[in-house]
Amino acid sequence: MDVKGLAMAKDAKTKGGPGRPRAETPKGFRDYFGAEVTERKAMLDTIAGVYHRYGFDPLETSAVETVEALGKFLPDVDRPNAGVFAWREDEEGASREGDWLALRYDLTAPLARVAAQYRNDLPTPYRRYAMGPVWRNEKPGPGRFRQFYQCDADTVGVASVAADAEICAMLADALEEVGIPRGDYVVRVNNRKVLNGVMEVAGILDPNDPEKFAHERGIVMRAIDKIDRLGPEGVRALLGEGRKDESGDFTKGAGLDENQITAIERFVAPSGPGVVGSGQVIVPAIQVSGTGVVKDAQGKIRTDNGFVEEGDWNTLSNLTGLTGGSLEGSQGVDELRDIISMVRAQGYGPDRIVIDPSVVRGLGYYTGPVFEAELTFEILDEKGQKRQFGSVAGGGRYDDLVKRFTGQAVPATGVSIGVDRLLAALRAKGRIRADTRGPVVVTVMDRDRMAEYQAMATDLRRAGIRAEVYLGNPKNFGNQLKYADKRNSPVAVIQGTDEAARGVVQLKDLFLGAKIAAEASHEEWKSQPAQTEVPRDSLVAEVKRLLGSA
Amino acid sequence: MDVKGLAMAKDAKTKGGPGRPRAETPKGFRDYFGAEVTERKAMLDTIAGVYHRYGFDPLETSAVETVEALGKFLPDVDRPNAGVFAWREDEEGASREGDWLALRYDLTAPLARVAAQYRNDLPTPYRRYAMGPVWRNEKPGPGRFRQFYQCDADTVGVASVAADAEICAMLADALEEVGIPRGDYVVRVNNRKVLNGVMEVAGILDPNDPEKFAHERGIVMRAIDKIDRLGPEGVRALLGEGRKDESGDFTKGAGLDENQITAIERFVAPSGPGVVGSGQVIVPAIQVSGTGVVKDAQGKIRTDNGFVEEGDWNTLSNLTGLTGGSLEGSQGVDELRDIISMVRAQGYGPDRIVIDPSVVRGLGYYTGPVFEAELTFEILDEKGQKRQFGSVAGGGRYDDLVKRFTGQAVPATGVSIGVDRLLAALRAKGRIRADTRGPVVVTVMDRDRMAEYQAMATDLRRAGIRAEVYLGNPKNFGNQLKYADKRNSPVAVIQGTDEAARGVVQLKDLFLGAKIAAEASHEEWKSQPAQTEVPRDSLVAEVKRLLGSA
Repeated sequence: MDVKGLAMAKDAKTKGGPGRPRAETPKGFRDYFGAEVTERKAMLDTIAGVYHRYGFDPLETSAVETVEALGKFLPDVDRPNAGVFAWREDEEGASREGDWLALRYDLTAPLARVAAQYRNDLPTPYRRYAMGPVWRNEKPGPGRFRQFYQCDADTVGVASVAADAEICAMLADALEEVGIPRGDYVVRVNNRKVLNGVMEVAGILDPNDPEKFAHERGIVMRAIDKIDRLGPEGVRALLGEGRKDESGDFTKGAGLDENQITAIERFVAPSGPGVVGSGQVIVPAIQVSGTGVVKDAQGKIRTDNGFVEEGDWNTLSNLTGLTGGSLEGSQGVDELRDIISMVRAQGYGPDRIVIDPSVVRGLGYYTGPVFEAELTFEILDEKGQKRQFGSVAGGGRYDDLVKRFTGQAVPATGVSIGVDRLLAALRAKGRIRADTRGPVVVTVMDRDRMAEYQAMATDLRRAGIRAEVYLGNPKNFGNQLKYADKRNSPVAVIQGTDEAARGVVQLKDLFLGAKIAAEASHEEWKSQPAQTEVPRDSLVAEVKRLLGSA
Repeated sequence: MDVKGLAMAKDAKTKGGPGRPRAETPKGFRDYFGAEVTERKAMLDTIAGVYHRYGFDPLETSAVETVEALGKFLPDVDRPNAGVFAWREDEEGASREGDWLALRYDLTAPLARVAAQYRNDLPTPYRRYAMGPVWRNEKPGPGRFRQFYQCDADTVGVASVAADAEICAMLADALEEVGIPRGDYVVRVNNRKVLNGVMEVAGILDPNDPEKFAHERGIVMRAIDKIDRLGPEGVRALLGEGRKDESGDFTKGAGLDENQITAIERFVAPSGPGVVGSGQVIVPAIQVSGTGVVKDAQGKIRTDNGFVEEGDWNTLSNLTGLTGGSLEGSQGVDELRDIISMVRAQGYGPDRIVIDPSVVRGLGYYTGPVFEAELTFEILDEKGQKRQFGSVAGGGRYDDLVKRFTGQAVPATGVSIGVDRLLAALRAKGRIRADTRGPVVVTVMDRDRMAEYQAMATDLRRAGIRAEVYLGNPKNFGNQLKYADKRNSPVAVIQGTDEAARGVVQLKDLFLGAKIAAEASHEEWKSQPAQTEVPRDSLVAEVKRLLGSA
């Protein structure tokens, strides 16, 4: 059937008669039909294949966790009502009476729990991927659901940013393998420590009292995170006194002074010196030629862990300048250089992975490198206006989540792909690879010869062809063809008494038939070229030919 | 890593220090690691392939339903504490304030809701399959979990038992395709209407007042359902006054008289006349030769919908005798004959699908045909005693579930595979087909040459080989090999400064190495035949050769 049609179909709201329940998906939840399931599965299988090839092992945790284990780490600050679906254990229930259980809200919190619980048995490092639904108890809205898929890969137990570099490279591979061509995506990398360094230099962070200015830093990070939406002026307003949005609502700003604002802007502005933004390398004021740095014959600058391109070097130099004097900032720049050096040495150029200081990734629990995959091609938004497709994946290093349980620091880093968004991107680009054709439908002309119709379907299936006998009421033959259309069937098989006597079947090419019906004149349509008569013995071969799989 | 070891590993119960949460899977829930996930996915993919080939479309409903839509249809009567995990919507939450939501307890109730909700848009018939977790709020016990997988296929909108026959045939195909050989399974078919007919004749059911004797009939069905466990004597006791079990607990019986008990026994006893039980065809007293029925040259008895074997005919004749005079009973026998005729005509012999009057399938919501797939090979149970593996799938016709919502009768039939049990059977038979080998591990001898190690892993991955660089602390080389062992890695790649200078790498065959370590003498072991030196340029080709995929 036409699945898109179904998904958008107004459901037959069953209000329920006297004493009857309503047939409704709970608000904020949805059902996935046919091709929607097949297409997502094909995409996730491809991603799993990439992760598996990188040595990651699958992990499937229970959907239910104790509230205690989940903690209050909901990553998405843009959703203020976000919460979990939780309930209290029955008295006769398990664990300890009165424990609160909840549906997981992401796949990272359960991983931290598993890493702590099985720490004596898991390999170190522990590389794992996980795919599955997560649940958020929040107000549903258009396109915002309370159950959605995530697809994560994480490495637990590696302090070296080699693990972060690996995940960025793997993410780029995964995007290409599902069908996003090179040039249509970019993985942007930043480091929280660099931003901290910039803020330290600007006097918005005191390394001796990290909690001081926490409120201001929160506003700064949220402002940077929204630069695409608010533009430079909006960010400037939020860094200063505050911002009035289109509806007239006022958001209080961080209250920074002019010098502080300029420092943040220099760090983050896409047009600032040395900054790599929107996939463009902008040559900065500080030239490599003036730094005594040596380039090799290929124009590469060798580092401890590989090499960087000139644009990378300039960006890193700029960041070094902006964080000068901050220990954390300089450590952050070193880590960024290491990550970029490693991915460059593995063949990932600036067309695939770049440094971008505007990447912040919400507030969350990140402690070092952060990354984000953005699709750079344009689509039309709801208002018919062109805009970049935007982010489809993000992640970073979170060294403190396992420590919650054990008290011991366990370094970890990972990435999460927004499954629905990536799938929407593939649909927008016409890159869905799943075969979503319906079955060959063997129609029923004579109810007495069901056994023969079943035999035809069996023959087709044995040859690997999707096929079924029409099992509805066969009286109205038109209904059978309507059914085949609804199922998106490529071919209908027809055999009446006459054809049976002659040992033949009629094959109706439904895709061609639809095309002719749409394009051809009435005379052409009547000649029915989309229907051919073939010997019963050639049924399988002829159907194969029609399906293009002969 | 050795996943079985991990699954059974005593988790490092983190009691949580001061203020620390406990790292524990909620009681009754579990996590699945590595090969456990891969193996289940491979099995489900194979089953989905069969269902898809039969024309079934995937459906994925939300995990959460309104309690109202779920209703009180928990199918499993053997679990008296069974219930759902439910919670009340927040005030600011969705739908209508105060609505109760719950996790689905099976995949049939959500299908009934979908069939009602989308009835104007779904094709008729609607064939769908669904795979995913379901949740039961009940007391956990050994091997009894509160979240587990189901794998269902159902046809909605077909009154004809052709749909039931199709599902039985498809179930047999699915079992063979995942790796259960013919002869190791049997699909048993029965019909609730036949049992009703037998009870009507015996005076335990009044067609004019179906609710009369409902209590007695419940006991009869539960007793029949437990015949494998209780034996004929136990069933007889339950049909009569009652039964005292080994622990001394007394279960009150149905209170039938001697004639009634005999009628049920004649219907159900595996050694009774004409009954097909345990996959054996027992030649009955009523011979075909005495009935005037005509067999064709192949010994087949032609029917309207195909043919039946002599054993089938005898069973059906016996059932006709036992239900004589009951309209419902005779209808049930007709349906059974139709189902068997159709599957026989499609090539499914009595070695694969049989009539078995002892199949009852709990109380549940079934209204006609019921079926069950049983694995007939023997395994050792917990006590080391041989027993048949038993049931792995079951289903039947439930014509009233959609009606709950719409008030209009919508016929439906389907089957559910117990995913964990079937997977356990495949493991017991050594029939798991998933490749669960770990990655090739490129070890780190010189920290300075990480880029070169990464390049080796990249080369291997480009050739489709699962590979990773060791990212833990490389100081202790022994730890790197221990890690490779834990990951179940087939090959370790080693390149020190010396090898690098000579342009070679060492390949260590870890599977062969483990075999030698286990079997060979110390001298043989020292000669290290499991390790070979190959040119760096041949790395990919040589690893492929070792993996047996050259």
